[in-house]
Amino acid sequence: MNKAVRHAISPRRAENYPEWYQQTIKAADLGENSPVRGCMVIKPWGYAIWELMQKFLDAKIKETGHENAYFPLLIPLSFLEKEASHVEGFAKECAVVTHHRLETGPEGGLIPAGPLQEPYVIRPTSETIIGYFYSKWINSHRDLPLLINQWANVMRWEMRPRLFLRTSEFLWQEGHTAHATAQEAEEETLRMLDVYVDFAENCLAMPVIKGSKTAGERFPGAVDTYCIEAMMQDGKAIQAGTSHFLGQNFAKSSEIKFADMDGSEKYAWTTSWGVTTRLIGGLIMTHGDDDGLILPPRVAPRQLVILPIYKSPEERQEVLAYCRCLQASWQELRFADEKIRVAIDDRDIRGGEKAWSQVKKGVPLRVEIGPKEVRDHKICYARRDQPSSAKQFVASSEFTAQLPQLLADMQQGLFAKALRERQARTREINSLAEFEAFFKEDAGLAGGGFALCHFDESASDHELLKTYKVSPRCYPLEQATFTPRAEVGSCLFTGKTSTRRVIMAKSY
Amino acid sequence: MNKAVRHAISPRRAENYPEWYQQTIKAADLGENSPVRGCMVIKPWGYAIWELMQKFLDAKIKETGHENAYFPLLIPLSFLEKEASHVEGFAKECAVVTHHRLETGPEGGLIPAGPLQEPYVIRPTSETIIGYFYSKWINSHRDLPLLINQWANVMRWEMRPRLFLRTSEFLWQEGHTAHATAQEAEEETLRMLDVYVDFAENCLAMPVIKGSKTAGERFPGAVDTYCIEAMMQDGKAIQAGTSHFLGQNFAKSSEIKFADMDGSEKYAWTTSWGVTTRLIGGLIMTHGDDDGLILPPRVAPRQLVILPIYKSPEERQEVLAYCRCLQASWQELRFADEKIRVAIDDRDIRGGEKAWSQVKKGVPLRVEIGPKEVRDHKICYARRDQPSSAKQFVASSEFTAQLPQLLADMQQGLFAKALRERQARTREINSLAEFEAFFKEDAGLAGGGFALCHFDESASDHELLKTYKVSPRCYPLEQATFTPRAEVGSCLFTGKTSTRRVIMAKSY
Repeated sequence: MNKAVRHAISPRRAENYPEWYQQTIKAADLGENSPVRGCMVIKPWGYAIWELMQKFLDAKIKETGHENAYFPLLIPLSFLEKEASHVEGFAKECAVVTHHRLETGPEGGLIPAGPLQEPYVIRPTSETIIGYFYSKWINSHRDLPLLINQWANVMRWEMRPRLFLRTSEFLWQEGHTAHATAQEAEEETLRMLDVYVDFAENCLAMPVIKGSKTAGERFPGAVDTYCIEAMMQDGKAIQAGTSHFLGQNFAKSSEIKFADMDGSEKYAWTTSWGVTTRLIGGLIMTHGDDDGLILPPRVAPRQLVILPIYKSPEERQEVLAYCRCLQASWQELRFADEKIRVAIDDRDIRGGEKAWSQVKKGVPLRVEIGPKEVRDHKICYARRDQPSSAKQFVASSEFTAQLPQLLADMQQGLFAKALRERQARTREINSLAEFEAFFKEDAGLAGGGFALCHFDESASDHELLKTYKVSPRCYPLEQATFTPRAEVGSCLFTGKTSTRRVIMAKSY
Repeated sequence: MNKAVRHAISPRRAENYPEWYQQTIKAADLGENSPVRGCMVIKPWGYAIWELMQKFLDAKIKETGHENAYFPLLIPLSFLEKEASHVEGFAKECAVVTHHRLETGPEGGLIPAGPLQEPYVIRPTSETIIGYFYSKWINSHRDLPLLINQWANVMRWEMRPRLFLRTSEFLWQEGHTAHATAQEAEEETLRMLDVYVDFAENCLAMPVIKGSKTAGERFPGAVDTYCIEAMMQDGKAIQAGTSHFLGQNFAKSSEIKFADMDGSEKYAWTTSWGVTTRLIGGLIMTHGDDDGLILPPRVAPRQLVILPIYKSPEERQEVLAYCRCLQASWQELRFADEKIRVAIDDRDIRGGEKAWSQVKKGVPLRVEIGPKEVRDHKICYARRDQPSSAKQFVASSEFTAQLPQLLADMQQGLFAKALRERQARTREINSLAEFEAFFKEDAGLAGGGFALCHFDESASDHELLKTYKVSPRCYPLEQATFTPRAEVGSCLFTGKTSTRRVIMAKSY
């Protein structure tokens, strides 16, 4: 890396945040666009992060009593049609399978053949196909609750794709549950919302506000949609996860009925909830800096990388042997109930380039070992959450003793920093002038944030909201990092009386 | 369970093996057919088995230096067309996406809209789309080898679907690697074949014969296809995994080129290899008995289930407390490097029905605990690999001491039993008369097996092969459980000289 270049990523965040985002993905080698419209490749480093996310969340989903299963990729059109608002919500973005083979056409190329009697869509979400099975599997109150999750790919045709944030195909988990009573289903909806809060905050170090969506922002077919919303460094919101109370809407359209204890036949109450690979995008925009990705240790595929430094083959042998010894002792240590993930980067490239590549990948700790460190039983280490020039020299025994705590401190520090930034940019807004000033277009990275506004939902198409591309994110619920105030006010836009504030923000 | 019924599954294997297979799946609640032609639902018990398979195999794939990634579901038609024999092999079974939205048609129902300029197929396998990316990612010999795996769903339109064995959509892993030399690529192909042998034999307790396919049975586009073949209880073969040496065929069609050390530009050498959810079908047909599924402990989601027995609420309290204590101590023990998976089945159903449901699910060990067992510190246990009436009473401390070894014995015992059965039904066949007798149609469960024949590949469409639906499975390689004889003979069908025997069998 040329010393004249101060930062690994060009442009810097303040110069052009969207472009910084793309360049950070490229520099960290997380993924790339594909020739298939809107679909991405998740490259090994990006996928390893997703695997760590899955591991954390899958354990929580199982701890809360759910089992994994797998349902078909394709959904018959007639299934989708059963729930009117659901199909309306998804019809415009469905990939449709119409044929089941290929044959050579009149001009020599392949053309679709074997037209299907009934076309299928590739699942945009699975309420309707899962509802079909639940109606078969559920007969009695003894079959309830039914608590199933699936990890799968889904497809929603995307006109303006953006890596990880909006892609036509994405990976997710979708939980689908059925219950005997409305109360149980509502409890489930909120239980899984809390699982998502735990996952976002304690695994991804991403502070979130949990809340309920306005009617206009609900999932198509839901009675209530709850969400977690995170603030990115440009003040915009990202919807990081949703949990839906579906009432009896899907139970009625899919005929999910059961004989209750008193013998009467009732419709079940259902929920669904999901998080997706867009969280990788959220992770980048929550923690990254002008040198690229910063990974919280819990989702870092490598938590510590050892960079051996040597000049001769003899030095190499000595230094590498020492590195392997350190690696062996460090990876016996544990952080967050798992062995610490330690790698040695012995690629045959220049030392500066090598160190920078690990910086750009967001590896939490870098340790340099040369002949001097071997001799003195010292190590030189750098933390990814501190400037890349801030190196520290300590006795290797001391470093070993501190390592688990160091990772814990970094994990906690990233969360605390993101929370401080969110809190600094969350404001109560009480007039249209304040609203305009808060969301003005030319504020750059420093402008905007979360505006707590009194809001009459009938004002959802107000000109100001459209002009600034601001939308209501959620009515916040009581939570550890946020306390909604009970307070009466009047809508910024219509003046009508309102009893609670909604969070308004630009969003991804 | 009515005492007059001797076995949990009807029909018994000897009566109707294919129907026994379907009924065993149903009784174990592993999966079911869907209204989407040829596509299945993998239900929680079936999916939990798949997760255990994935865990074992994923670790081996990573240990051998591969990283996971994720590539797009959809493949442009033009990509598929690039490799002539590849497209010929898959064109007849491709699901084709032709539209990207739905709209209301003239008759009110939804119809496909937004026709795509170029249709996509849902991946039947990913050589072509991954080849596209490899051609971008590989420039120099320093970029090689490139070793990537993905876990994904694929689709091959299936006219005669059968749960797990042949489904239009199935789950699998597909490894795709690129190398600088033919030798390295061949070594990789055989390395992964050995990983599959290890997986099949040590995880699934399924003995396999590894070998190379005849030209006619190769993967479309491969230079060599290697496979592992297992024998089911009806003597038929199942192809349990394949590993392909693709030569430079896909490198040429996808332009995967690199600058070698001497500066010259060369095409890479590639491989691909995969195993699928059909292994669940193979597992059922390798170990199951007339009471249903038998799971080797390594892939049993529950390795031991405790069945509490009580008559009054007071007894229930006492017995359950004791069961929980046993569960806590047993699940601290380890088998095959993991904590033993112990569940308590306290469902409110009759004891007999409860025990049989665990038998049918293939749970390796059942432990019954009633007030007497609590008092005497004894337990009564039954092994799934022994008749369900064979119960054993031992001191609970003794059982605890033996438990890990007991599971190891069962795992090993299932493998040994399947191997003995295969060996008993593997024969050298030296004449057409012997061939006809071996494969005669009315032999039922006891007939047929693996026939080691001298075979001239040009005889692949011989009438006898077609009549008996027999096909060449592989030329066996030297391996722990099978030693091919170096021997010259003459083809059963054409009389031409042959230097090695091929395994002939009926197959799934």
